[in-house]
Amino acid sequence: MLQEISHPTPHPVAFVGAGPGDPELLTVKALRALQTADVVIHDRLVSEDILALVGPHTRLRNAGKEGFGPSIPQSAINALIIEEARTGARVVRLKSGDPTVFGRLDEELDALHAAGIGYTIVPGLTSASAAVATLGQSLTKRGRNTAVRLVTGHDMQGYADQDWRTLARSGEVAAIYMAKRAARFIQGRLLMHGADPQTPVTIVENASRADERIVTATLATLPSALFASDVTGPALLMYGLAPRDARMTHTMPQQQEMI
Amino acid sequence: MLQEISHPTPHPVAFVGAGPGDPELLTVKALRALQTADVVIHDRLVSEDILALVGPHTRLRNAGKEGFGPSIPQSAINALIIEEARTGARVVRLKSGDPTVFGRLDEELDALHAAGIGYTIVPGLTSASAAVATLGQSLTKRGRNTAVRLVTGHDMQGYADQDWRTLARSGEVAAIYMAKRAARFIQGRLLMHGADPQTPVTIVENASRADERIVTATLATLPSALFASDVTGPALLMYGLAPRDARMTHTMPQQQEMI
Repeated sequence: MLQEISHPTPHPVAFVGAGPGDPELLTVKALRALQTADVVIHDRLVSEDILALVGPHTRLRNAGKEGFGPSIPQSAINALIIEEARTGARVVRLKSGDPTVFGRLDEELDALHAAGIGYTIVPGLTSASAAVATLGQSLTKRGRNTAVRLVTGHDMQGYADQDWRTLARSGEVAAIYMAKRAARFIQGRLLMHGADPQTPVTIVENASRADERIVTATLATLPSALFASDVTGPALLMYGLAPRDARMTHTMPQQQEMI
Repeated sequence: MLQEISHPTPHPVAFVGAGPGDPELLTVKALRALQTADVVIHDRLVSEDILALVGPHTRLRNAGKEGFGPSIPQSAINALIIEEARTGARVVRLKSGDPTVFGRLDEELDALHAAGIGYTIVPGLTSASAAVATLGQSLTKRGRNTAVRLVTGHDMQGYADQDWRTLARSGEVAAIYMAKRAARFIQGRLLMHGADPQTPVTIVENASRADERIVTATLATLPSALFASDVTGPALLMYGLAPRDARMTHTMPQQQEMI
């Protein structure tokens, strides 16, 4: 399967999930798409280690957007994908994590539909899966929670309003994306709805990467823990989960050494 | 990276996600673990195509459980993992999808902790990611939903009670696992809480596999659509999502042909 490297889809454009950052957490299909693409249009958050895996003749185009608002407008990214596809190039649109989770995929799909260009979607590992594995925990657990939420800390309007009332109940688990700047808001909303201040909250920065860091906190200590640890990389807030192994501290850098 | 096949973890046991079924949706790390394991203890739902990828000297042990209740007790599976690990074998405990999502991972981790045996977790693609990619949709979408839920249709007590009130609101999206037998219950609860009977509901059977099938319905027609289509394989109920392309019908078998 790995020997014969052919492109995994007959369509001009493949939306490919790059996963959380560790190149080994790419799917086999994603790796194959990268190795056989003519051009890879990638987000800012895709790691250098992954970009290094493209084929020898593959062109890289950075469509990087910053966390708050695009530095390249979405319409320009759409136009870039269409322009490349119309040249006959095999286009990989590479998005960090899973393109279907907080990836603004629909806007690009709509543009391709309007242009009459075919595509396929190669799903990727979303960072919540990597983060929870690092903690030695599960997103769902018998007797604790029969549902888990993937939630964003902010949306187009600013801080995203969520169903804080039910999230405040005992045993709830959520992976909160883009939560750093919204941490105080999230804390306030959950406490207001009656969440236990001792609810465990763990920040996983750069999940699955060599510079991965874990910051343990409770709902009560979340803002001060974030401030003290100076989290600057992409971070997931794992609400309702602490590391299984109490020896994990917030300075341990490598997944393999922790569990 | 792919040439030098070495085992990805120094620990005796690796909990590995097999992903939704397509062997190409294994992560590179999972593939490497399978190829270098001494023994792979796998669930019933892991596909033959994936089991065929283990190394030439790898032993396969089936720890298969049926959908309702275990055919092998969990305690016997725990004992099997420990027994193999104590012989010095490199053990891969292979679970379909992502081991941290409805995978009963914690019970096995607890047993290893009690036995003093080290482990690592290699996350996998959960079937919701594959199913939504097949539909050409996203799990989250700006202006529609800023959170998505992974929910189970039943738990230890039977049909799982969920936060139906908020799920009944317009724009909510959930991937409901093990939903087939609970479909009427889920329908009833959501309608009771005011969900629009026209809310799109799509069943994806055998997501990502060669025999994948899509059954389109609405909340109103869900039970009759399920009955008429005779869904027998593992199925995900995608609540709040219809296929993007209206030409998709419930008999199209292959992802590549659809989008």
